[in-house]
Amino acid sequence: MAKNNQKLVSEITSRDVDFAKWYTDIVKKAELIEYSSIKGCLVIRPYGYAIWENIQKCLDKRFKETGHENVYMPMFVPESLLNKEKDHVEGFAPEVAWVTHGGSEPLAERMCVRPTSECLFCEHYANVITSYRDLPKLYNQWCSVVRWEKTTRPFLRSREFLWQEGHTVHATAEEAVQETERMLDVYADFCAEDLNMPVIKGKKTESDKFAGAVSTYCIEALMHDGQALQAGTSHYFGDGFAKAFDITFTDKDNKIKHPHQTSWGVSTRLIGGIIMAHGDDSGLVLPPNVAPIQVVVIPVAQHKEGVLEKASELLEKLKTAGFRAKLDDSDNSPGWKYAEYEMKGVPLRVEIGPKDIENNQCVIVRRDTREKAFIPLDELEASANRLMNELSEGIYDKCVANIKSRTYTCTTLDEISNVIAEKGDGFVKAMWCGDESCEESVKEKTSVGSRCIPFEQENISDKCICCDKPAKFMVYWGKAY
Amino acid sequence: MAKNNQKLVSEITSRDVDFAKWYTDIVKKAELIEYSSIKGCLVIRPYGYAIWENIQKCLDKRFKETGHENVYMPMFVPESLLNKEKDHVEGFAPEVAWVTHGGSEPLAERMCVRPTSECLFCEHYANVITSYRDLPKLYNQWCSVVRWEKTTRPFLRSREFLWQEGHTVHATAEEAVQETERMLDVYADFCAEDLNMPVIKGKKTESDKFAGAVSTYCIEALMHDGQALQAGTSHYFGDGFAKAFDITFTDKDNKIKHPHQTSWGVSTRLIGGIIMAHGDDSGLVLPPNVAPIQVVVIPVAQHKEGVLEKASELLEKLKTAGFRAKLDDSDNSPGWKYAEYEMKGVPLRVEIGPKDIENNQCVIVRRDTREKAFIPLDELEASANRLMNELSEGIYDKCVANIKSRTYTCTTLDEISNVIAEKGDGFVKAMWCGDESCEESVKEKTSVGSRCIPFEQENISDKCICCDKPAKFMVYWGKAY
Repeated sequence: MAKNNQKLVSEITSRDVDFAKWYTDIVKKAELIEYSSIKGCLVIRPYGYAIWENIQKCLDKRFKETGHENVYMPMFVPESLLNKEKDHVEGFAPEVAWVTHGGSEPLAERMCVRPTSECLFCEHYANVITSYRDLPKLYNQWCSVVRWEKTTRPFLRSREFLWQEGHTVHATAEEAVQETERMLDVYADFCAEDLNMPVIKGKKTESDKFAGAVSTYCIEALMHDGQALQAGTSHYFGDGFAKAFDITFTDKDNKIKHPHQTSWGVSTRLIGGIIMAHGDDSGLVLPPNVAPIQVVVIPVAQHKEGVLEKASELLEKLKTAGFRAKLDDSDNSPGWKYAEYEMKGVPLRVEIGPKDIENNQCVIVRRDTREKAFIPLDELEASANRLMNELSEGIYDKCVANIKSRTYTCTTLDEISNVIAEKGDGFVKAMWCGDESCEESVKEKTSVGSRCIPFEQENISDKCICCDKPAKFMVYWGKAY
Repeated sequence: MAKNNQKLVSEITSRDVDFAKWYTDIVKKAELIEYSSIKGCLVIRPYGYAIWENIQKCLDKRFKETGHENVYMPMFVPESLLNKEKDHVEGFAPEVAWVTHGGSEPLAERMCVRPTSECLFCEHYANVITSYRDLPKLYNQWCSVVRWEKTTRPFLRSREFLWQEGHTVHATAEEAVQETERMLDVYADFCAEDLNMPVIKGKKTESDKFAGAVSTYCIEALMHDGQALQAGTSHYFGDGFAKAFDITFTDKDNKIKHPHQTSWGVSTRLIGGIIMAHGDDSGLVLPPNVAPIQVVVIPVAQHKEGVLEKASELLEKLKTAGFRAKLDDSDNSPGWKYAEYEMKGVPLRVEIGPKDIENNQCVIVRRDTREKAFIPLDELEASANRLMNELSEGIYDKCVANIKSRTYTCTTLDEISNVIAEKGDGFVKAMWCGDESCEESVKEKTSVGSRCIPFEQENISDKCICCDKPAKFMVYWGKAY
């Protein structure tokens, strides 16, 4: 490993020279992924998968705290089942992978590999729900899904990707809408607190909503280059799926009714978000809550007496204090190791050498600012804790500042084109009448699409930016991954 | 839910009347699974999935303690990749599900849904291994796999099932063999300590080994009805896969060599094992370490003043002490609740009513023996802990006794047929010369197949039970799920 990575840092493209190249350099150099022989299907390597496991732990805890249970549905959807909800099949059929044979025998009915599991959950719910006593059903599933897309990018758009999909059933529309909103809040809190990534909460326009949904809520994050990333979605289905799949229950008033449903999901795309929100020209910068290694201890002049012993002692102290910590006592040089763990985005680096030991101290370096602090050894755990919290806040604040400096308020289409040409990509706040033709027109003329109708509305102007008719909404527009 | 389950207990078939029917009754009544519209593809419901999550936690901890890292490989194997190792493709091609189209376009090369992931791991290893410094690679993956079998049974043989597959690469054959054995030990310890299910460790015969393996080790458990269950396997591959997939590394002596590999796996089939090893005519009996609910608190006469308050208090005490505990304060009768949680195999039931409160005590009932104990309230946690440990030992010992009473030593084929006719299915210990024709002959004439060549050998006789030639091994024979 050492041999291949000697030129680790010099080989990475600068963010400002070529952001796309910088991104693919990082996913490879930080050993997050490796390509397989199937386009768009990736190997998620141990370091990348460990980030996903931490994301899972953080989210699963939040799901269980809000009363959800995990289940597992089959990975195959028979064609007739996929066809049951008209809008849904239209949205997904063009990009599903079809299984046609079992061994050498053709199947009686072909099946697709799930692109999402609404149909499977609905079939199951029709089987197990009979009474209001069976409601609500608050289910979630961790699995992989397949969408056979033409253009792919690691984590951001893969043909197979890992995700979770919540699917819930409620007696009333009000309850289902509340659930849709609650889970969007869970996602937004998770992004802010665990990924240190601020997001905008809002609603998708009609043209952009999930196939089969009444409404789609979303969280949108802004990447370093000013492009938006849809980081999670939460859909309210009304009783459309329930009617298509014949899900009914006997209510308290003894009447037979269709229940109301939701679904919501986030995926390994979040790892792409972490990279592009926080990374820099030296590599990843990982939010401490999902970092596989939170603190790396690096011995300096480790051949000298007592250095490795002291380094091991520090490691044990950190582990005992609950940090995910690692000691690198390999025979690579300290400089090589610094570059390696910077590439991997480890939040804190502890350096300990003979002089430090003499002075009963160590050095702690923050990954984001690279600030060095000399820390008395008996304050190691407390200082590491403080510095890690400061890093979390620091990278969050940096994202907030990025959003602030890259959010432009516009009242004409020319303004949009000009501000982007001048200042670069970002969020454009502009008013909209609600007509799909205007939405398309904005995209055509300025190259920015609608990202969402944010919950926090502002009245920038009374007129639609495109047609001069009365404005209904303020919309966030932008380019997106 | 209450309504449907009122006749819960009366509807379950007795184990001794029809074991197969008893089994399928339980998986449905305990709400572990529900069928989907695709034969052999199951919905794993919250209670069933929670058991699997606990199995995952217990095993994943053991894997990480032995130095393994989790990864994720693509779910598709291109046909040309599957074809690279001759024995492997012969073993799996007849039962794979083939994907032929992406959306409406035919694929240039068809792909199968992974039946197992040796090919994918090997392709990746060829990409990332170059030096002895890259070894060993100790990877594991949690995922689902697909094998398009004709006959299916919930958990025991599904077309799609959940499992883990470890895949490791080592510089030497010795190291790889050690790993194969180490992981078999990990499985056996896990079965004994976490599932309270004793297993026999041994080696599969040549005819029964994994497609592409040099040798396959296995753990075999005995179910209540005397049929064996292969509960886990660990394979040593030698350098066969490395040669087929061109995996090489430069060793310390600067020579280019092929590394040696292993793989090992257990699946949701273990849940079937738990059911058939421990269950009884009232339903599941769950090993405490994997039980979703370890203690259920049931208030008696809960409308009376103070009962629900006291029950909640007990619940909190149990949770604080680290138990997975639940209070059922629904309006079903206590009797209904007792039957419900017996069906679900909850290890301990705590009953608390007005009289108990007067006497400052509660009742704890063990699921396995149904013994009632009156416990002073200030001894609740300690007693629950003790009783849960006693239950773990009790159900383990019961399995050991079952194996003992159902293991028969035979020296002729007639003896085998007679002892099974008289005493029922079980393990038959008998000598074997090592010839495949004798192995087949035993199966044909007595209906028992070879389960494994146990590591603990005994010398029952000098001659093969079939052909009178000198015996090489003592073999465990039996019928198997």
